[in-house]
Amino acid sequence: MSRQQRDALDAMLRGAPYNPGETVDEQRAGFAARQTLPVPADVAVVDRTLGDRPALEIRVTGAASTGTLLFLHGGGYVLGSPRTHAGLTAELARRTGTTAVSLDYRLAPEHPFPAAVEDALAAYRALLDSGVRAENLVLAGDSAGGGLVIATLLSAREAGLPQPAGAAVFSPWVDLTLSGTSMRTKQGADPIFTVDRLSAYADQYLGDRDRSASPASPLFADLGGLPPLLVQVGSHELLLDDAVRLAACAGAGDVNVTLEVWAGVPHVFQTHFATLEEAVAALDRAGQFLSDHLGAAEP
Amino acid sequence: MSRQQRDALDAMLRGAPYNPGETVDEQRAGFAARQTLPVPADVAVVDRTLGDRPALEIRVTGAASTGTLLFLHGGGYVLGSPRTHAGLTAELARRTGTTAVSLDYRLAPEHPFPAAVEDALAAYRALLDSGVRAENLVLAGDSAGGGLVIATLLSAREAGLPQPAGAAVFSPWVDLTLSGTSMRTKQGADPIFTVDRLSAYADQYLGDRDRSASPASPLFADLGGLPPLLVQVGSHELLLDDAVRLAACAGAGDVNVTLEVWAGVPHVFQTHFATLEEAVAALDRAGQFLSDHLGAAEP
Repeated sequence: MSRQQRDALDAMLRGAPYNPGETVDEQRAGFAARQTLPVPADVAVVDRTLGDRPALEIRVTGAASTGTLLFLHGGGYVLGSPRTHAGLTAELARRTGTTAVSLDYRLAPEHPFPAAVEDALAAYRALLDSGVRAENLVLAGDSAGGGLVIATLLSAREAGLPQPAGAAVFSPWVDLTLSGTSMRTKQGADPIFTVDRLSAYADQYLGDRDRSASPASPLFADLGGLPPLLVQVGSHELLLDDAVRLAACAGAGDVNVTLEVWAGVPHVFQTHFATLEEAVAALDRAGQFLSDHLGAAEP
Repeated sequence: MSRQQRDALDAMLRGAPYNPGETVDEQRAGFAARQTLPVPADVAVVDRTLGDRPALEIRVTGAASTGTLLFLHGGGYVLGSPRTHAGLTAELARRTGTTAVSLDYRLAPEHPFPAAVEDALAAYRALLDSGVRAENLVLAGDSAGGGLVIATLLSAREAGLPQPAGAAVFSPWVDLTLSGTSMRTKQGADPIFTVDRLSAYADQYLGDRDRSASPASPLFADLGGLPPLLVQVGSHELLLDDAVRLAACAGAGDVNVTLEVWAGVPHVFQTHFATLEEAVAALDRAGQFLSDHLGAAEP
C-alpha cells in the first residue's frame, strides 16, 4: 500500500480542522461539502420512503440484484445524510450486487436518542414487511452509523425479529462514554477527531442520558445472537478501541466476527477510495464478506 | 456452518480429558496419537535440517512453489512435533503454493525458554541465508507455536533482520501470565483446556522466570514494525482473549492485523478440517491471506 497516498490524505484532513464555533447548520453544510462524493454514471439513485422516513435507493444499473443492503450513514448522529454517503454506499452496492437503501434517520440535537434507533429499526422492519427475507438482507454503516447498525441489530433481537445475514461496520462508534485507551494514545495520530469533538456529538445525541446505556452505546450490551460481523478500522483513530472492543465483545458472545485494523489510515478511510489503495482493498474485503453471507443460511 | 459438526467435535474432545498424572513422555505419546493426521498421498514430506535443528519439508508434489512457509507447531512448548502437525501444515502449503518447512524446535522442560525462541530465530535466519527473500517468506503456527511466531518476529526485529511478508497464527498463546478475561469466562465452553493445564505448561517452559516478559509473552511487547498478521481463534477457548489482545496490541502499534473469531469452535479448530466446515473455511481464509501477501512489497 502507498505511504505517499496515506501521507497526502493525512495532510489534507489536517488542513480542514473542526471548528467548534460553527452552528449545527454550518457544520452540516461543511460536512456535506467535504464528504459528498460524485456518484458514478452507472449508478441509479432514487428517492423513496422506508418506514416513515425518506431514503435513497442506490443500485448499479444493469446488475442483477442478489439482495438488499440497508446502509446507515455516519456523522456523529448530528451530521450527514444518505446523499453525503451515496458514493460510498454505491461502492458497497457494486461489490455485493445488492440494491442499497440508505436511510435518512432523524438527527440530533433536534431529535436526540432514541430517534435514530427507532427510525433504523422501523426501516429494518419495513424491509422485512415488504418481503425482503432476512437471509437476503445485510446491514452496513460507518462511524455513528456503524454504532447504529449494532444498535439496530440489538433492537431487532429484542423485538423478536430475525437477524440479517451479516453486517459490516467501518470505524464504528459504539462507546459514547469515550473510555477507549485509543482516545488518549491516538490523539496525535488521528487527523480528524478530538475527544472534545466526539464529546460534543455525544452531548447533542444523549443530553443528560446515561452515555453507557445500550443501545446508545451498544458496546456495553450482550451481543449474543448477532449475525456475522465485519469491523474495519484505521490505526490512526481515536475510535480504534471502539472497533477492537466491539470485536472482543462479539467474540465473547459467540458471534462470528472479523476485525481488520488497517495501519496508518484514518477514520472511515474507505471514503477515500479514489485516492487510497487501502480504501479500495478494504471495500473489496467488505464486499466479499457481505456477499459470502448473503443467502447463506446460518443454522 | 454445521451445528451438528461442532457438537460432535466438542463431545469428542471432552471424551479425552487431560490427565495431569501422566509423565511428559506419556503426554507426548498421547498428544501424538490424538493429533497426528494422515498426510495425503500428493504431499511430499522430507527430513531436513534448518539452523541446527531437524525439520520437515512439506510440499504438494507437482505444484509450482511461490514461496516458503516456516511453520511452528503447538503443544504448550512441551508437546508436539513437525510430524504431529504435518497434516495441518500440508493444508497451508496446499492453499499457499508454498514449500513449508516445519521446525523441530527444542521442547521444555528439558530445554526451557529461550531455547524454542533461539531455535526459531536461527531457522528464520537460516532460510534468509539460504537465499529465501523475506518478501517470499511467511510464518504460521498454532497455540504455543503461534506465540512462538510472534516471538520470532520480535527477535528478528531486534536482530535487525527483515520481516517476512506476513504471518498467520491459530489460537496463539501469547500471555503466559494467563491474565485474559476468557480464562475465567470460557471455562465451561472450552472442551480442551483448564487454567491448571496451561499453568503447568508455563511452569515447564519458564520455571521461575518472569511470565510477563517478552518474548516469552509477546503480548506485552511493542509490536510496531511487525508484518501483516492474521489471528484466528475459536469462541470456545480459554485463549480467546490472547488472540483478541494480540490483535489490539498489533493495531495499536500500527500493524495491519486481521482477527477472526469463529463462533462455537475450540482451540486450533483448523486441525479438524476433515470433519468441520469451519476448519476448511478458516484454512481457506488463512491461505488467501498468506497468498495475498507473498511477493507483495510493503513500502
